[in-house]
Amino acid sequence: DLIRKYFGEKIGLYFAWLGLYTEFLIPSSVVGTIVFLYGCITMESDIPSKEMCDQRNAFTMCPLCDKFCDYWNLSSACATARASHLFDNPATVFFSIFMALWATMFLEQWKRLQMRLSYFWDLTGLEEEEEHPRPEYETKLLQKKLKNKNITTESSDEVRCCLLFSFMWDLCFAKLIHVLICLQIMLAFSAVFGIIVYRITTAAALSFSTNETTRSNVRVTVTATAVIINLVVVLILDEIYGAVAKWLTEIEIPKTEKTFEERLILKAFLLKFVNSYASIFYVAFFKGRFVGRPGHYVYVFEGYRMEECAPGGCLMELCIQLSIIMLGKQLIQNNLFEIGIPKLKKLFRKLKDEKTEVKEMDTNQSKHPQQWDLDYILEPFTGLTPEYMEMIIQFGFVTLFVASFPLAPVFALLNNIIEVRLDAKKFVTELRRPDTVREKDIGIWYNILSGIGKLSVIINAFVIAVTSDFIPRLMYQYAYSQNGTMHGFINHTLSYFNVSQLKAGTQPENSLFAQEVAFCRFKDYREPPWSPHQYEFSKQYWAVLSARLAFVILFQNLVMFLSVLVDWMIADIPKDISEQIKKEKTALVDFFLKEEHEKLKLIESFIAHDKRKRRSGTKSRRTRAASFSQCHRSPKGSFTSFSSQHTVV
Amino acid sequence: DLIRKYFGEKIGLYFAWLGLYTEFLIPSSVVGTIVFLYGCITMESDIPSKEMCDQRNAFTMCPLCDKFCDYWNLSSACATARASHLFDNPATVFFSIFMALWATMFLEQWKRLQMRLSYFWDLTGLEEEEEHPRPEYETKLLQKKLKNKNITTESSDEVRCCLLFSFMWDLCFAKLIHVLICLQIMLAFSAVFGIIVYRITTAAALSFSTNETTRSNVRVTVTATAVIINLVVVLILDEIYGAVAKWLTEIEIPKTEKTFEERLILKAFLLKFVNSYASIFYVAFFKGRFVGRPGHYVYVFEGYRMEECAPGGCLMELCIQLSIIMLGKQLIQNNLFEIGIPKLKKLFRKLKDEKTEVKEMDTNQSKHPQQWDLDYILEPFTGLTPEYMEMIIQFGFVTLFVASFPLAPVFALLNNIIEVRLDAKKFVTELRRPDTVREKDIGIWYNILSGIGKLSVIINAFVIAVTSDFIPRLMYQYAYSQNGTMHGFINHTLSYFNVSQLKAGTQPENSLFAQEVAFCRFKDYREPPWSPHQYEFSKQYWAVLSARLAFVILFQNLVMFLSVLVDWMIADIPKDISEQIKKEKTALVDFFLKEEHEKLKLIESFIAHDKRKRRSGTKSRRTRAASFSQCHRSPKGSFTSFSSQHTVV
Repeated sequence: DLIRKYFGEKIGLYFAWLGLYTEFLIPSSVVGTIVFLYGCITMESDIPSKEMCDQRNAFTMCPLCDKFCDYWNLSSACATARASHLFDNPATVFFSIFMALWATMFLEQWKRLQMRLSYFWDLTGLEEEEEHPRPEYETKLLQKKLKNKNITTESSDEVRCCLLFSFMWDLCFAKLIHVLICLQIMLAFSAVFGIIVYRITTAAALSFSTNETTRSNVRVTVTATAVIINLVVVLILDEIYGAVAKWLTEIEIPKTEKTFEERLILKAFLLKFVNSYASIFYVAFFKGRFVGRPGHYVYVFEGYRMEECAPGGCLMELCIQLSIIMLGKQLIQNNLFEIGIPKLKKLFRKLKDEKTEVKEMDTNQSKHPQQWDLDYILEPFTGLTPEYMEMIIQFGFVTLFVASFPLAPVFALLNNIIEVRLDAKKFVTELRRPDTVREKDIGIWYNILSGIGKLSVIINAFVIAVTSDFIPRLMYQYAYSQNGTMHGFINHTLSYFNVSQLKAGTQPENSLFAQEVAFCRFKDYREPPWSPHQYEFSKQYWAVLSARLAFVILFQNLVMFLSVLVDWMIADIPKDISEQIKKEKTALVDFFLKEEHEKLKLIESFIAHDKRKRRSGTKSRRTRAASFSQCHRSPKGSFTSFSSQHTVV
Repeated sequence: DLIRKYFGEKIGLYFAWLGLYTEFLIPSSVVGTIVFLYGCITMESDIPSKEMCDQRNAFTMCPLCDKFCDYWNLSSACATARASHLFDNPATVFFSIFMALWATMFLEQWKRLQMRLSYFWDLTGLEEEEEHPRPEYETKLLQKKLKNKNITTESSDEVRCCLLFSFMWDLCFAKLIHVLICLQIMLAFSAVFGIIVYRITTAAALSFSTNETTRSNVRVTVTATAVIINLVVVLILDEIYGAVAKWLTEIEIPKTEKTFEERLILKAFLLKFVNSYASIFYVAFFKGRFVGRPGHYVYVFEGYRMEECAPGGCLMELCIQLSIIMLGKQLIQNNLFEIGIPKLKKLFRKLKDEKTEVKEMDTNQSKHPQQWDLDYILEPFTGLTPEYMEMIIQFGFVTLFVASFPLAPVFALLNNIIEVRLDAKKFVTELRRPDTVREKDIGIWYNILSGIGKLSVIINAFVIAVTSDFIPRLMYQYAYSQNGTMHGFINHTLSYFNVSQLKAGTQPENSLFAQEVAFCRFKDYREPPWSPHQYEFSKQYWAVLSARLAFVILFQNLVMFLSVLVDWMIADIPKDISEQIKKEKTALVDFFLKEEHEKLKLIESFIAHDKRKRRSGTKSRRTRAASFSQCHRSPKGSFTSFSSQHTVV
């Protein structure tokens, strides 16, 4: 409330929203940690990773790159497998369902809180009054008018062509903007693609290197560097996109402030969303799907193999990617930038002012600086959009890929606890006091939030079904394994490949375990070499695939149904508030009634008194009657009952 | 509007809704007929059905029943195959997408129309006033009170137990009602099950019969009779359920009329929905899925095989089922019952009255009967629930299974064109004039409609993917067939079975084409007898299954996305209306302002005039000021601006 008193409703609502969001993060982060701990505990007892790690059943895997890579033993990837179990266990499935419902619940609660606030802050009846067009828009109109006037002075056919031209120009303009946005999005994708290329090439390059140590931990180095580069790119692009969106909206010259803001937000959100999530989507759904098979790999520009996922499954990499980008963005962008940049600007501004000060010194020697002089040094307030934006993007991190990274809420929570303080500090000390704006709700942000909520259901379904090994495990346990346990799962997921069929020049040189390798294994469901149609997808592949898709359908519809249920059970308007409103209305009606009585009395006595006044009195009475019919017609039904009584009176 | 004037808003809204719905049925029925015609045209060129019909490639199918049924030639099922193509062609996929969007569009348009009506009918501001509790509820409360009073006179421990008892009783009661509803639903399912049993048994029985002709068209007779029985059962149960729902809600004793109606509607809808669709769901998704395979059939109670679908696929039967039930329901229930029963009752009532009349004759000899005397003969008005209910159920028929029966909208349209007239006639001539009720919207029906809309997307997806042969055809065309055409599709869908492996006693006796049958075919994707693991599901099976599921996911998400788009593009409130409302508000404000000026003038002059009046005048002025602060606090923001100006004044 204090915030609202000082800054006005708009910022008040922002902080209210932020507060509720942070509160809601607490339970989810608790559950998240529990899920994570469950993973840690069950890690020891997880049979697949045990099987991977134990040296006895040594699976000789096919080389990861042509020529220079040797066959390798699966047990060497033990660590990653164990780690991946942390995030790839049944609990995550439960957790992602939980989070989907959590999102719905959050939105519902926000609706309620909003109602409550807007009631206590007298916003219930606030309708946007006629908005004043922005000056830019008016100037443009003016120019148009002038041009037309000029034209009209000229000859008619010129007029026609000119008008036509300007009309065409406007059309092209609208198109142009969309094209530009598409280009921007392309840019984001290309950045991701660039990073992929980097990964592939460096991986290859490093694998050439004779140095043993470098070769041994190619994957680690590549991943680490790639992610960091990715992060940097994301941060830079983020800034660029912010500017671009602003620029685009400005040249669009929308009519009112509101439309301006909304368009800006939509553009900025679209761009930043793509920017932040493109790489993650790639890792989640596309990486390692187009590898091909040994002896028939997919090659991109002359002879670089597509990259595969780590033996532990792509989920691990997804998790790393997610965590680093999320944390990086939060730490660097939200906190460093948000505080650092204003401070710097302030400093800069001060310095500049001091220079000017010196000159003016003689003029205003005596009187010490006023508050507004001091405040002038501060940054001007540039709207809440960035604040909301970062929160929404974070909300995306928390909900969209939560299946692969249950700790996301925890980090989000930590970040927000700092965030609230920082924002508050910033608003109070770093920025000039913004002019208060009355706002009924958080506007378009709500739609974006609910959109993300819906999207998250589908994405989580796919992450669990496609990216994680959850479904194959289930399938194995209940369909293929003899004794209903997970023993032999690893063996079941690996297909055989006949080494002799490796293309010439792709066999590993100077292999350490040279001759005795007849068959190497690779992670896929394909027919073995000795089957009639070798290396085709095996029946298991199709069975698992259909199981996966079935899971997606089940999950999606179940969760959607549940969230509809939640939505339906939680009333949008809190009971007490709605009753309050009703009471007030009745009170209002009674009041009008009483007042009318008095007026009538008044007027009658008055009429009795003398002629001239009577006339005006009747007039006023008539007008009053009319006014109440007006009231009756106006959208406040509570008057209806009253006016009927009034007629009786 | 006339309707509204005579019957009040509620019925007016019903007819408005019905009108819009009927209008919307026109385009959909046009498209439906086009789709159907497309089917007719392409029937000749449809390769699979050609292949089925052509005598040269004779597939000897496995017998349809044990012992008595002979092997049969697929070409004998040619007719059904051709017919099924009418409804099972690519156009239906497009059509079901179209219908899903159609449903969304319809709801959106209804929202707009509702807004418009409620504006022109002065309902915009109508809020439900304090509703008066129903008499039943009050009596119950009274009884409770009395009982408690009695109790209090008795000793304390008795009191406690009694209170406890009554409390328990209420709890059980609530549970009881739910249990009863579940029982009812069970009943519906059991009815369906009974019909299934009937089908199986009669099929078996008829197949025993020595008469050649009967045996030849077992399927036809069985299907026909079964469906008709089904229809009768549905009709009877419908009536029962109506009564049950009413009774249940009455013993529940809800507080107000509104809640009463809502609960009643929910119950009735739930029951009738299950009742109407259970059998259709069975045919669509379960029939012929649990047949087992030759030599290893699934048997239900001693030795009856589960029923299979016709060779043309289950879609054909679904279509028959759907059309008969839909048409039957509409013709018999909606039109016969709706008109017939009131007429009968009226007649009956008349007769009874005449009897009484005779006695009273002497009393009211002279004066001829008044209008209300005549109207007294008519039926009392029993609410709109049944009218809405039938329309909603019909809406279900139109949207839910439209993929399997593109002509549904056409029939619905025809029905509604009659329906509107009949309802109008009924309301005017057959029923007493109902007391007008002001209603803002169609209430809970809207939610039910949108619910059906959502459900229809999923169901259609499944119908196309699972019930129809659409996906297998595509798969064959693009994956399996050598030359990219549909030639050999039938052969591909049929699996081989080694006759010698038929269980003893299940081989057909006196087979016409006796010895030379070594392998018989059956419609399923299973490994041939000569494969290592024979009769297991083949790779094709899993591939097709995953394709089907993929299609479901794709379809569902695509359509949902599109309908969200539509929802987002169409504004809920028509532009002109919203502007009108704004204008009125401003007008209202100005008016109040003017009036206030006058009042002030009035009062001042008045004060100037004499002392006594001045006091009351000031009082009234004070009160008025208060009243406006009230207005300001009340949920009509348009006052805000005004009152501020007023204070200035």
